[in-house]
Amino acid sequence: SVNPDLASERQTASFSVETLTTWLDGSTENTRIRRAVVKAIEGDPVFSRENQYFQSQNERYEAAVRKAVHLQKKMHEMGWTENGPEFKYIYRALSGDVAFLLHRIFMRSISVLGSDKQINKWIPLASQYQLIGSYAQTELGHGTYLQGLETTAVFDVATQEFILNTPKISAMKWWPGDMGRSATHTVVFAQLYVHGKCYGVHPFIVQIRSLQDHSLCPGITAGDIGPKMNFEHIDNGYLMLQNVRIPRENMLNKFCEVQPDGTYVRRGSQQINYFTMTTVRISLISDEVIIPLMKACTIAIRYSVVRRQSKLKPGEQEAKILYYQTQQEKLLPQLAAAYAFHFIKDYLQELLDKGYREIQRKNFDTLPELHAFSSGFKAVVTQYCTSAVEICLRACGGHGYSLLSGLPSLYTKILASCIYEGENTILLLQTARFLMKCFMAASTGQPVPPSVTYLAAGKPGKCPAKNKLDFLSPDIYTEAYQHVAIRLVSNTAAKLQDLIQSGVRKHDAWNQCTVQLVQAAKAHCHYITVKNFAETVEKLETKAGIQKIMKHLCDLFALHGIFSNAGVFLHDGYISGAQMDMVTASYLDLLAVIRKDAVPLVDAFDFTDKSLNSALGSYDGQVYQRLYEWARKSPTNKQINPAYERYLKPLLHNTLSKM
Amino acid sequence: SVNPDLASERQTASFSVETLTTWLDGSTENTRIRRAVVKAIEGDPVFSRENQYFQSQNERYEAAVRKAVHLQKKMHEMGWTENGPEFKYIYRALSGDVAFLLHRIFMRSISVLGSDKQINKWIPLASQYQLIGSYAQTELGHGTYLQGLETTAVFDVATQEFILNTPKISAMKWWPGDMGRSATHTVVFAQLYVHGKCYGVHPFIVQIRSLQDHSLCPGITAGDIGPKMNFEHIDNGYLMLQNVRIPRENMLNKFCEVQPDGTYVRRGSQQINYFTMTTVRISLISDEVIIPLMKACTIAIRYSVVRRQSKLKPGEQEAKILYYQTQQEKLLPQLAAAYAFHFIKDYLQELLDKGYREIQRKNFDTLPELHAFSSGFKAVVTQYCTSAVEICLRACGGHGYSLLSGLPSLYTKILASCIYEGENTILLLQTARFLMKCFMAASTGQPVPPSVTYLAAGKPGKCPAKNKLDFLSPDIYTEAYQHVAIRLVSNTAAKLQDLIQSGVRKHDAWNQCTVQLVQAAKAHCHYITVKNFAETVEKLETKAGIQKIMKHLCDLFALHGIFSNAGVFLHDGYISGAQMDMVTASYLDLLAVIRKDAVPLVDAFDFTDKSLNSALGSYDGQVYQRLYEWARKSPTNKQINPAYERYLKPLLHNTLSKM
Repeated sequence: SVNPDLASERQTASFSVETLTTWLDGSTENTRIRRAVVKAIEGDPVFSRENQYFQSQNERYEAAVRKAVHLQKKMHEMGWTENGPEFKYIYRALSGDVAFLLHRIFMRSISVLGSDKQINKWIPLASQYQLIGSYAQTELGHGTYLQGLETTAVFDVATQEFILNTPKISAMKWWPGDMGRSATHTVVFAQLYVHGKCYGVHPFIVQIRSLQDHSLCPGITAGDIGPKMNFEHIDNGYLMLQNVRIPRENMLNKFCEVQPDGTYVRRGSQQINYFTMTTVRISLISDEVIIPLMKACTIAIRYSVVRRQSKLKPGEQEAKILYYQTQQEKLLPQLAAAYAFHFIKDYLQELLDKGYREIQRKNFDTLPELHAFSSGFKAVVTQYCTSAVEICLRACGGHGYSLLSGLPSLYTKILASCIYEGENTILLLQTARFLMKCFMAASTGQPVPPSVTYLAAGKPGKCPAKNKLDFLSPDIYTEAYQHVAIRLVSNTAAKLQDLIQSGVRKHDAWNQCTVQLVQAAKAHCHYITVKNFAETVEKLETKAGIQKIMKHLCDLFALHGIFSNAGVFLHDGYISGAQMDMVTASYLDLLAVIRKDAVPLVDAFDFTDKSLNSALGSYDGQVYQRLYEWARKSPTNKQINPAYERYLKPLLHNTLSKM
Repeated sequence: SVNPDLASERQTASFSVETLTTWLDGSTENTRIRRAVVKAIEGDPVFSRENQYFQSQNERYEAAVRKAVHLQKKMHEMGWTENGPEFKYIYRALSGDVAFLLHRIFMRSISVLGSDKQINKWIPLASQYQLIGSYAQTELGHGTYLQGLETTAVFDVATQEFILNTPKISAMKWWPGDMGRSATHTVVFAQLYVHGKCYGVHPFIVQIRSLQDHSLCPGITAGDIGPKMNFEHIDNGYLMLQNVRIPRENMLNKFCEVQPDGTYVRRGSQQINYFTMTTVRISLISDEVIIPLMKACTIAIRYSVVRRQSKLKPGEQEAKILYYQTQQEKLLPQLAAAYAFHFIKDYLQELLDKGYREIQRKNFDTLPELHAFSSGFKAVVTQYCTSAVEICLRACGGHGYSLLSGLPSLYTKILASCIYEGENTILLLQTARFLMKCFMAASTGQPVPPSVTYLAAGKPGKCPAKNKLDFLSPDIYTEAYQHVAIRLVSNTAAKLQDLIQSGVRKHDAWNQCTVQLVQAAKAHCHYITVKNFAETVEKLETKAGIQKIMKHLCDLFALHGIFSNAGVFLHDGYISGAQMDMVTASYLDLLAVIRKDAVPLVDAFDFTDKSLNSALGSYDGQVYQRLYEWARKSPTNKQINPAYERYLKPLLHNTLSKM
């Protein structure tokens, strides 16, 4: 039975939840397939996450391996394939708690960086799990700056082998997933040396564990890097190499090769590598970032209509906490952001598909734009969503702090996305560098990619809004965002030039502008996000039933951004103080409007109770019963109190001193 | 041996670290005592936290009990007493990992709420640990809104007993520390009923476990609430009561009593209860919030001069990451905040001491101010410091995400401070209510507490700064903060009145203003923090050696606040866009200046390696060695891989299908 406080929220929905769900999925067919995958996975007890919050690192790891192994069988049974339409829903349905993700990266790196011969040798072995692969790039001392990697691979002409070493402690490989305990092989990135000359970082396939008994190979030291904030199910590992010899054929040699006599040959373009990173960043935005935020919103919003606390009006029943303006102001902008970023994901995917078509025609012109956009959005979306999940957690008070709410796990996991696949600040600076170049080009009339032509359109101007309703016009707020992006990009470009002209050296000048460069890159991404949301809503015309509520969410996302970053809009008077008061009024009005559809808006994400795995967020809203039921399952309640005989009893019986 | 990259940072300190340390401690004598306590605690293996990051909830709990029990012995040995000068340093030295904190609250509540007779009966038993107490206030369904508690205590005249019940699931006590597994007694807050009439929430002493064998008493259901984001060492518990009978004498009756015939008598003032909450909030700011932030800054800043990544200038060695402006901009404002809040703690303590002197003279006039300030600052400081610790964590990249960095534990623990002892939004609204009252009073010429007389001084005005150096004048920035606080308070008061005058009912009007009320309360606290920091620096005149660097930190704290909340300063043109550019320039200049003293500034916090318990933050900066050493101790590396025989071997040997 559904908690009546939750049921009543559903009865007044202004739109059809099912229509919204299928639209979010892309088609009714997609919705059908997704639900079928979820049903098959969640109906299989091997994939259960029931005890997840009570498990140790060891137990989580074992469960992830078990699931990964079982998944092979399941896919076979269900007729799912890696290229089938079901595949993209499997990981989502498993909520990521599965091993061998790095095995897939191992395979991808061989497919991309290996010769046909290498692909023909290794891919079948890997596909059939006759080996388990990992991907050993990051070292203790180097993450972001790949050129600084310290592992070495020295070519020995006499034996036709590479000799691999991690010559100092900071060179030790550190973090690779699946490597601490599972992998038998890994792709090691190392500085290539031939005849004493360094040729930079190259990838090598190295066996690290015996295929017979899984013992470490000679010269290999490897293990688990220990406890982390989350990802207990992954055996992130360390790896030291001492004079490990591998055959010449194990250097992945599609683009570079060391010939038997030691001649180094480079061929083709390595630009395609950027493309791989781009793909990874765009796909992680969806799976690792937006879905967790959607889950967090679902949990926090459902809880906020079930939880009643204090009174809005004297003499009445206690109020649902979502009816308090401060609670709306915490949660509803995060809900709007989840939608905004879902649409930006589609935007990026389209950009990527277009770029890929060009690349297939050997046209690499789109790569810089793609790289800049995927970097900037990876940073902005992960940062925003991480903060948003934290807000959801805090908005649930004490119960949000319990692991049983599901929110701590979502938070500690999404937090990692700010760091992996490129640290966010570094990525934003790469986007900024692209924007600076484009701005300079646009200013001098040179052609720039269509997505940044707006940079040439800068003019002082003022926001034309005359009353609070004007701020519900997408043109008004989109232009405001555009204005800010142009101003921040152009001002920073000017500062950079001034510094250089005043004699500061280029790299120092760059460093002195980085705080503002980061701001400019964020403003650009924020502008594109708002613009894309507004355009998405506009295109919805035919689906009138959901267009209205999507328009509200778009307005909320945009106005929340202006309200919370007021400074950049007020700075040059583009928006006046009086107009900012109108923004605030419209923004606060919207909260009360969207609150009425808040539950249907999270219902549309269509998460099952099992996938939420939250005592606060289930569809039926039976929060307190579930918290109690689940707490009783805790190992702390299932055994004798370990402290009683040794400490509490002697203390209470006053026999401590006699011990 | 100290890492030379760290050592070099210390050689160029612009001030004496020891002078700063003793000044922070309050006196050289305090420093001496603190170090003696730390030495005694850290030298005792029973108090070791060495394996903390590898322990399960069960193990953490057992260790906390062990430490609490051992602490009794230690205090006796060392001659430390609860009223001695050492006491306040013990908890800090233990890093909070100790049980029976609620036992102390149990005793305090009896001392404050109990009659002399009750005190004489219970306090000696508790002091000698012939019982273990807890404090059962929060329920599954009620935290903030105490009047809504659902546990009942019905007086039975016939037997002269109270009959206690948790009549529905939401009435179950939930969260009390020490209650899940340790406590034998607890103070239960319940709605008192006599002859069918409800007299509101009152405290009752209830035994929940046998003193003989620790089994649950009749009618009691209790246990652990399960895993949380942190505080694994605390057995937060649940408690259900079914017709539990306790004698009439067990209602704490200093202020209210039920006489044998059922007559309810109320006597004296309960205002003093607010004072207890005030004390708790102020003391938690120091122990649970500022110290963790100081630790996080120490870890992140030391790491940032040891970690080298990428190159600032082509051809040079890789640069220490603290030399990048973006890294400075992440960490140095947090360092400045740690100092700012350390000084606000002194400010609050002084306010409290003054208030206490008045209360002893039966003058309760200072209570509203004290309540408003302790509430507002509890919220502002916990929120700010939680975000700050998160920034420190993220600023350490992947290594910050490892539990071994110490940062995840600091973060997950400090996060709870935003929720316990009053949820922050609720607290800020209480501060706002006080500010509204004072503003109204001040506007009509009525007297207000000295700390808020500034609210009457509002006038439009403009910031007089003419160049970026003017913004290094405390008068300039303090006035800007004051101006903003007045504007937000007065504008919100005006909005509130407008709404009411336009016919909106008072409570609805209040709810429609709460987002802005929260902003106003924060602006007030921010202003007081900046003002107090500036005054503290001014008073330092004689200690010239540290005044200069403290002035820099004060400037940084203030300008960072203007830079990151630019909107509220620009809104009415008090600061112009051109002036905001000056703020930005001065702010960025300061980062480069303070960076030079960053390591000495964290060294002055004087944390030992054991108290930091961080592979990244130790005094010697041997980061990579320590990460590796510690990782090898992980239980995941100490046993057979649990997944090998069952899953990996059959997979690799292709015998899965045959299983």
